[in-house]
Amino acid sequence: MTENKETSTTRLPGKQELLSEFSKYFPKENSSTIVAAGDDAAVVETNGNQTVVSSKAFIENVHFDLTYFPLKHLGYKLSTIVFSDILAMNAVPSQLMVSIGISDRFDLKMVNELLTGIAGCCDTSHTDIVGFDLTASPRELVVSLTAVGECEPTLLCSRKGAAENELICVSGDFAAAYTGLLLLEREKKVFNVNPNAQPDFTGKDYLLQRQIKPEPRTDIIEALRRENILPTSMTNVCDGIADAALKICKASGVGCSIFEEKLPMTELTFVTLKDLDIVHTVAALNGGDDYELMFTIKQGDFENIKRIDNVSIIGYITDAASGYNLVTGDNLRVELRAQGFTQ
Amino acid sequence: MTENKETSTTRLPGKQELLSEFSKYFPKENSSTIVAAGDDAAVVETNGNQTVVSSKAFIENVHFDLTYFPLKHLGYKLSTIVFSDILAMNAVPSQLMVSIGISDRFDLKMVNELLTGIAGCCDTSHTDIVGFDLTASPRELVVSLTAVGECEPTLLCSRKGAAENELICVSGDFAAAYTGLLLLEREKKVFNVNPNAQPDFTGKDYLLQRQIKPEPRTDIIEALRRENILPTSMTNVCDGIADAALKICKASGVGCSIFEEKLPMTELTFVTLKDLDIVHTVAALNGGDDYELMFTIKQGDFENIKRIDNVSIIGYITDAASGYNLVTGDNLRVELRAQGFTQ
Repeated sequence: MTENKETSTTRLPGKQELLSEFSKYFPKENSSTIVAAGDDAAVVETNGNQTVVSSKAFIENVHFDLTYFPLKHLGYKLSTIVFSDILAMNAVPSQLMVSIGISDRFDLKMVNELLTGIAGCCDTSHTDIVGFDLTASPRELVVSLTAVGECEPTLLCSRKGAAENELICVSGDFAAAYTGLLLLEREKKVFNVNPNAQPDFTGKDYLLQRQIKPEPRTDIIEALRRENILPTSMTNVCDGIADAALKICKASGVGCSIFEEKLPMTELTFVTLKDLDIVHTVAALNGGDDYELMFTIKQGDFENIKRIDNVSIIGYITDAASGYNLVTGDNLRVELRAQGFTQ
Repeated sequence: MTENKETSTTRLPGKQELLSEFSKYFPKENSSTIVAAGDDAAVVETNGNQTVVSSKAFIENVHFDLTYFPLKHLGYKLSTIVFSDILAMNAVPSQLMVSIGISDRFDLKMVNELLTGIAGCCDTSHTDIVGFDLTASPRELVVSLTAVGECEPTLLCSRKGAAENELICVSGDFAAAYTGLLLLEREKKVFNVNPNAQPDFTGKDYLLQRQIKPEPRTDIIEALRRENILPTSMTNVCDGIADAALKICKASGVGCSIFEEKLPMTELTFVTLKDLDIVHTVAALNGGDDYELMFTIKQGDFENIKRIDNVSIIGYITDAASGYNLVTGDNLRVELRAQGFTQ
């Protein structure tokens, strides 16, 4: 949300611009630094073995809203988010460190709830909690998570590496988490006007679950290894398909064509977005919170990828000069832009 | 500060108690987890190589006060703090990840100041910044830092390992940072009453420097390697000598005798504490913010340790039954307690 924040002297630019703004602070001096600031996670090497590290701070009322977020689910979701950064390097998370800052609105029972959620996600991901710090925070709840993962150097994927004619794949389906958020926000408004109102989410469970309890896609990384597929590039989809595709294309110096009709979406998401008067393609391209994976593969892997459930081919890589394109249902080419429902 | 915070339902216990309270969340399942929650840093192993990781979140008005903390110095100090956790495992920091949450009181120039300080400390420590994230924070400045370090498995030290008759050593001198804090707090009170008052810190530079810009003691780790000394246990001194000694003793299942007269302190610290009417031993035992190292060595290393500047032997390890003792100048034995000027 920093991207839109105005200050008295300077408008804060987006994350990628900030990285260039401050790039002078990120020289790569140690030979053990393999991937530095600017990818999904950092990669550190010791004697040929690579450790992948991702760290994120989440702040109440910026990254989450406790009005509708149960603490247990919050713990689960924030863990999924940092694990997703590790998975996006084609690595598997193995350890997590937790720092929590709480105000006097909180008691040990609430910390317990939050930790139960974090531990639940660690359990799903076979990850150990190896660090824990609890401190005071004047007001907002602050949760800082650091995930550590393991990767054989030959399997490591970064955003850089996609080449012309390769296929663009994504896991899962899109816009469900964003649609879930819209429903929650709508009910919050109703509740603010009438605190006795009971939310009605009948039949919308999947949308809420995708927003409140997204799962780390460790299964996809495991399936890729099982099928002997080494993606040529990879990133996680946290701010919509357009943002993820642009990250891969810009890092790899290539263009892309993505087919509107190939964007995976459940019927429930489609119908609910229609009820909410939102164009479903826009939601898939720019909605956030999916924490799915996007990766590119060589054409030779086409038969193998079809054996993995929950993976869709949504387009292909082009040369840089062709630009970043969405091919619509009626075969029009529209420039792909990241509108950034970013956090 | 959480230790003294009362909530409506539960009093938050200290950090070590919290670790036991929540210990069910910290099972060690992965063979790659070497040291888990409860030591200065976590240790992760991949094919025999160890990576040391420490992560901490710092929140304005809990961990630091911007009234007297220039942002550049703050960045330097917070980096020293996380590096100190890595050094406390007898490892050397190699990478740092930075997450900053800022409110609209901040602009890019201020973020630049903070990063200059962080980068300055990274420069001193030959450490690369490999991750950077900037996000919004509703009010307080939040800085979350994750340090990664390298260690040969044979050199790794934890808090556990001290044995009877071994010597207890510390780097540097004590209570200076705490005395610096007292001076800053005193001037802040004066300023609050009379905003035109100019602070007078003449001759107190060293005390302020120890509070505002503590240095990571990489030099001590390097010197230990040069002199071929492998400590049997190690921790960093962030909350006073008593707290550090108790951490080592409790983890190692031993007792200790520490000599009051051996506690290293500069003349300036001693005199200033006297002016402030504070017992200097209490300040050395319980004052915080030193970020020095405490470690135990075998008696056979006595001659070698004398060759390292800035290291003092302050006592020795006893059996557990003898307890944790301070031997006073008049040869009385007083039980050592951590009073916790903790953060």
